Amino acid sequence: MLTSTPSPPYYAVIFTSVRQDDDPAYETMAEKMALLAKAQPGFLGMDSARQDIGITVSYWRNEAAIKAWKQHTDHLAAQQMGRKRWYRDYQIRVARVGRAYSLQDRPDMLFDGR
Amino acid sequence: MLTSTPSPPYYAVIFTSVRQDDDPAYETMAEKMALLAKAQPGFLGMDSARQDIGITVSYWRNEAAIKAWKQHTDHLAAQQMGRKRWYRDYQIRVARVGRAYSLQDRPDMLFDGR
Repeated sequence: MLTSTPSPPYYAVIFTSVRQDDDPAYETMAEKMALLAKAQPGFLGMDSARQDIGITVSYWRNEAAIKAWKQHTDHLAAQQMGRKRWYRDYQIRVARVGRAYSLQDRPDMLFDGR
Repeated sequence: MLTSTPSPPYYAVIFTSVRQDDDPAYETMAEKMALLAKAQPGFLGMDSARQDIGITVSYWRNEAAIKAWKQHTDHLAAQQMGRKRWYRDYQIRVARVGRAYSLQDRPDMLFDGR
């Protein structure tokens, strides 16, 4: 259920958001954008959850892949709708993942050795 | 509702997880750990949501602050409970945030200029 990513380094886009009131068009566009993102060169995976706020973290091979996705024509249209109608607030953070571990990795042992 | 962070660079710990079956002790410990994290030197903020999976992103001044929090005695005990009882799976990614913008920043214009 969690996305698998290759060994670091790679990049993460951390998108946190607060939605406006429900708009049925939002879910349709969100699903379309998720599918389109997955088809982009350099896309590595995505995790998403929404409760009081939404958090979507997408993983990318490098910054060029992130920039290309940001400038994709269909995505630009979705971004504009997001700013005008769907989101009350959002934050986007672009980060370089340098270290990653999982339940299987016994992180206490690994952390100190890296 | 979204956490505010200072200008980059800073660090993010992206914690994604799938829980085991409900354990009432989990929520108590999760709240305790969130409060304790906020009291640590170098803590900058935290965003959290759980739907099918849980995503918690905490923000930190530098890697030393992350390492100190990881090794905090009470947190080590919680980590052990997490591995043994609470989580079916988790991933932890430590990342350096190099760029951040929000709804107010008109991201299209900023992105190209950076």
